[in-house]
Amino acid sequence: MATSPFTQPRRLLPLFLGLFQGTLLLFFALFVTYEPSAQAENANLLANKVYSTFPFFQDIQVMLVVGLGLLLTFLPRYGLSALTHNFLLLNFSMQWALVLQGLLHHFHHGQVQLDLHKLLISEFAAVTVLISVGAILGRTSPCQLLIMATCEIPVYLASEWVIINCLGVLDVGGTITIHVFSCYFGLGVSKALFRAGQQPLHPKEAPTPRSDLMSLVGMLILWVFWPSFVAVLCQPGDAQHRAILNTLLAMSAGAITTVVASSLLERDGKLSPGHLQNGSLAGGVVIGAVADMAMPPVAALALGSLSALACVLGFRFLTPLLGRKLSLLDQCGIHNLHGLPGTLGAAASAMAILVASKDTSGSHFSQLSPSGGNASEVLGEQWGDREASRQALHQVAGLAVAVGVSLLGGLLTGATLQLPCLAQPPERLCFDDSLYFKIQDQVENPGPDNTTEEGALALKEQI
Amino acid sequence: MATSPFTQPRRLLPLFLGLFQGTLLLFFALFVTYEPSAQAENANLLANKVYSTFPFFQDIQVMLVVGLGLLLTFLPRYGLSALTHNFLLLNFSMQWALVLQGLLHHFHHGQVQLDLHKLLISEFAAVTVLISVGAILGRTSPCQLLIMATCEIPVYLASEWVIINCLGVLDVGGTITIHVFSCYFGLGVSKALFRAGQQPLHPKEAPTPRSDLMSLVGMLILWVFWPSFVAVLCQPGDAQHRAILNTLLAMSAGAITTVVASSLLERDGKLSPGHLQNGSLAGGVVIGAVADMAMPPVAALALGSLSALACVLGFRFLTPLLGRKLSLLDQCGIHNLHGLPGTLGAAASAMAILVASKDTSGSHFSQLSPSGGNASEVLGEQWGDREASRQALHQVAGLAVAVGVSLLGGLLTGATLQLPCLAQPPERLCFDDSLYFKIQDQVENPGPDNTTEEGALALKEQI
Amino acid sequence: MATSPFTQPRRLLPLFLGLFQGTLLLFFALFVTYEPSAQAENANLLANKVYSTFPFFQDIQVMLVVGLGLLLTFLPRYGLSALTHNFLLLNFSMQWALVLQGLLHHFHHGQVQLDLHKLLISEFAAVTVLISVGAILGRTSPCQLLIMATCEIPVYLASEWVIINCLGVLDVGGTITIHVFSCYFGLGVSKALFRAGQQPLHPKEAPTPRSDLMSLVGMLILWVFWPSFVAVLCQPGDAQHRAILNTLLAMSAGAITTVVASSLLERDGKLSPGHLQNGSLAGGVVIGAVADMAMPPVAALALGSLSALACVLGFRFLTPLLGRKLSLLDQCGIHNLHGLPGTLGAAASAMAILVASKDTSGSHFSQLSPSGGNASEVLGEQWGDREASRQALHQVAGLAVAVGVSLLGGLLTGATLQLPCLAQPPERLCFDDSLYFKIQDQVENPGPDNTTEEGALALKEQI
Repeated sequence: MATSPFTQPRRLLPLFLGLFQGTLLLFFALFVTYEPSAQAENANLLANKVYSTFPFFQDIQVMLVVGLGLLLTFLPRYGLSALTHNFLLLNFSMQWALVLQGLLHHFHHGQVQLDLHKLLISEFAAVTVLISVGAILGRTSPCQLLIMATCEIPVYLASEWVIINCLGVLDVGGTITIHVFSCYFGLGVSKALFRAGQQPLHPKEAPTPRSDLMSLVGMLILWVFWPSFVAVLCQPGDAQHRAILNTLLAMSAGAITTVVASSLLERDGKLSPGHLQNGSLAGGVVIGAVADMAMPPVAALALGSLSALACVLGFRFLTPLLGRKLSLLDQCGIHNLHGLPGTLGAAASAMAILVASKDTSGSHFSQLSPSGGNASEVLGEQWGDREASRQALHQVAGLAVAVGVSLLGGLLTGATLQLPCLAQPPERLCFDDSLYFKIQDQVENPGPDNTTEEGALALKEQI
Repeated sequence: MATSPFTQPRRLLPLFLGLFQGTLLLFFALFVTYEPSAQAENANLLANKVYSTFPFFQDIQVMLVVGLGLLLTFLPRYGLSALTHNFLLLNFSMQWALVLQGLLHHFHHGQVQLDLHKLLISEFAAVTVLISVGAILGRTSPCQLLIMATCEIPVYLASEWVIINCLGVLDVGGTITIHVFSCYFGLGVSKALFRAGQQPLHPKEAPTPRSDLMSLVGMLILWVFWPSFVAVLCQPGDAQHRAILNTLLAMSAGAITTVVASSLLERDGKLSPGHLQNGSLAGGVVIGAVADMAMPPVAALALGSLSALACVLGFRFLTPLLGRKLSLLDQCGIHNLHGLPGTLGAAASAMAILVASKDTSGSHFSQLSPSGGNASEVLGEQWGDREASRQALHQVAGLAVAVGVSLLGGLLTGATLQLPCLAQPPERLCFDDSLYFKIQDQVENPGPDNTTEEGALALKEQI
Repeated sequence: MATSPFTQPRRLLPLFLGLFQGTLLLFFALFVTYEPSAQAENANLLANKVYSTFPFFQDIQVMLVVGLGLLLTFLPRYGLSALTHNFLLLNFSMQWALVLQGLLHHFHHGQVQLDLHKLLISEFAAVTVLISVGAILGRTSPCQLLIMATCEIPVYLASEWVIINCLGVLDVGGTITIHVFSCYFGLGVSKALFRAGQQPLHPKEAPTPRSDLMSLVGMLILWVFWPSFVAVLCQPGDAQHRAILNTLLAMSAGAITTVVASSLLERDGKLSPGHLQNGSLAGGVVIGAVADMAMPPVAALALGSLSALACVLGFRFLTPLLGRKLSLLDQCGIHNLHGLPGTLGAAASAMAILVASKDTSGSHFSQLSPSGGNASEVLGEQWGDREASRQALHQVAGLAVAVGVSLLGGLLTGATLQLPCLAQPPERLCFDDSLYFKIQDQVENPGPDNTTEEGALALKEQI
């Protein structure tokens, strides 16, 4: 089916992945062990730690593997590819982050002692790749996506180190370090890769009711488990409880605001499935930076509503504008779901810190860094005005670092992805599973005269 | 696509929701806070409380958002609407219950201190709306559904207060307070709203194998997580363990009995997907009132089987009868899944109390009220005959209150929903997503001559 | 639709299930109780036990009911049957295992005291049936499947008792006792039942992109929750933590190796959905026997990769070979997913024991038998060469017992399934939901001239 120019370069995929697997095995053989067996008195402690982390970890796995995978199946003929590429990238990026973090952060301690927490941190790094891919979904080959992941993970680790460890930014749910970073990285890649900019609507790009339904199920799975994502790295007890509640409130308010906004913007007051699939999640993005801070609950509701509004308005006005003015392609609208609410969340965190310092009712900030927990700093019960202003400034500086580093990294990565050996599919073959999957229908229903590529593709229109 | 009479009133949806969001924000800003930060010694306690409640809470969220949503997608062209309306109503009702409970129950304490338990209680209130909607699914506008939720939540809270706090009914899994109540409320609404009664089968009403499959997946998700729903409010330890086991046994027995009953009732011994989607869950409905009581395990099995049998027989004989005699429309058969097993469960709880009082082997009743935990009363180890008879009577009285209040409330609500401004869709436009969603196919495949409403609908038959 | 020869025997299904339900009720009424109420000081302990086991239990339920069910829906017209038969068999087998285990293991203690752990053990027994069914999916009637389950459960319990209690085999994740056993049992049944062997490809056997997508979602659900399956019976603390990590590593490596292998083996470097659906899970099968042993993490990665490779190679070369040479039918390729990785896992466990005994770094083996926890034996910190060799030999002997007993049991069971009263469907009616389900389309779209069976089936091709 696929023409010859695509046959050869695709051998690059197994070659690249095979080499990577070899490197991974070598790295693990040389440097990675488990913790030595705990003594009897510690066994109970460890068991409790497993019981308290593992359910959160599983929730996050469901989000990333099933929820996010299904969310991306809104392209009706690209479901297998969306699910599989998401799954492959998650595993690849997680292992790659494990290797890099092992080398970078822990090398001076000698052997790396693997535990559930380190896997979780690597999974957070992998999330950035999964989000960035949204900008270029359907128009790229698996090889391009893997190279993109290879570039993005180290840039993310560096950016996250600067933001959390150097600037001391408070961002327990990854609003700045993950969402803002991955959004602008993805947009950078898209800008460099698709210079021509917006193409006319591809016939296979439009969702069908059925593919919208699958995508909606994915959104609902993400919506349900999002509180686990935000709260997993919080300090157990008060802060974690508050993070869960704030996330629940923000997401609930965001869901309703999405319906209001979509209904007002669309003709006849109808709803747009795309708005629902994205806007309902905006509350989870915005709340990450402030989830464990001492805010009144109404702030979580207001932030959730505001971010959902920003997301829907972004889809309606900003995405077409960016397409026209900057020739920017953003397939899944990650700028609306991650960029706008992420920026809003960063601003909100600065504001919350300033307000809390004025507040005499005994505020309490606690934060555990996503970079491994070793940078945890429970700030004092009451901040002076001075410290608060400085911390607020740092939050804004963190946002600037995330945007700047990711845009630069993304543009460079996007330029790399143009290498011809990476087999970017031509426009007319995009958004189609049959380019990457052996689909059996082709064998079953050989039409009379579809030996040509277009004929075969036309046949598949009927499925 | 939709004709002009539907264009204007739909503006009511964003208006109504927007006003509600404003009220919610105001209420939260004025009255709701979080608990003050816990001291160090209490932090551990709170952490344990979060770890013990949160997994149950997440399970219940999956049930309601994903499981129940998918269960309702058996209407092949109404999947997007079913999922979205379910999601919207859950959020709206939960927030509305939070506001009302805050005002009603906690106002005299001053500030409302939000915690996970209060959210859970509000979620239980929202469940009643999601169930009641089943009676009128597909023939109502989102505005009607929201007004219905607005009316149902206060009636539910009142009824639940009478049943649990005044009558002291034991009903840890919400058999009487939630299932029976919501069933008869929904039937009341349906009776008042669709006076003409049973219409001929709508062409878009019949499930396809594909929509049945999605609905079956929804049932399986509900089936798996139901024990969490029943056990979440039980006292930790013995009672909760027993509630989990009883629910597992009842649901397992119910699943097998459903296959037996459906196979006996259908032609050629085939199974009906509709029976499976409902009957398999009947065991979970019936067990709620007795789950934590001291019954032998065989009672849970027997109740599960009986309720599944009642459910399947109800679908086969009672629903058509009610349709003919009372002109009652019950789209999802909620009377079979919630009404009959709920009544059975209430009767079983009275019987279990009477039997346990005769039993000399040391029975133990414990119950934690779903209304907020403040009415918990662990009854003594051994009841006298006198107290047992009184308690059994109260169980029956609770059932009567639930049926009476819900029917009355439902009839009044149904009458309200006939207001023309609520934009009830005409029969021929029912069961179709394109009435509420901007579906892109319409743009993509403009047929040659389907400018008329019917033509466009006919075109969509092919999707 | 189905012709008369199928009408009568199908009455056997409700008859058989009804009789079974009666037996179950009788058994429970006579022999099964709950534990007596715990004292106050024990209540806390029990509560903690529930909190530590229940989330794992729920994860496993999701795997078996939703994940495995969806995985089997790759047959495009057999989704309802695959989901329902899987669900029915799980409940039936679990209850049957509960009865048999109650009678066999616990009878001499008098009353059986039911708890969550006993249900879990019965669920593990039921898993063997669900796996074995994969060999004959789509060509068998529900009655045949139930008889098969009736035969398989006692054979499994006997085999598991010999392997774990007599031979003392270490197999915490069921690699040998569950995966190897069920694979060869299923192949035995298939061999005895379908003597004619491989038929030409049935027109309804080929997956469509849509059915492959549903199956892929099922795989992803299984993939996410597999660590819970492997780790649930481990000793809390160190061993359980290590089991979780090993499983995560093995499954992650397996996922990537699957992509590499599939891409290398298929034409044009495309991926085969079938390879992905199975190969990605092979890492979970192989790791079961060694998950809690003291291995370096690199061993888990290597085992995951190797097993995925074996699985994909098996699909490409071994399954066609077995079909040609041995006339063996293996519909889902259970030999590739369970047989090959299971054997590999058994060999790996023997090797790990030998290596660990040479190792001076203080190895630690712990294992809790899946047969009820009463055979738990934490082996000493350091094994002598002698004990290690003996234990390694026992691992291999356990593998031999599993293969031998299951093959014999499967062949005998398969011979039994040929009884004409069990209503095996004829070839041309296979892989079709309409044989077992009342599908409403048939009523809705009565074609002009499809009164014959074939005509009706042909009509359904269009759905």
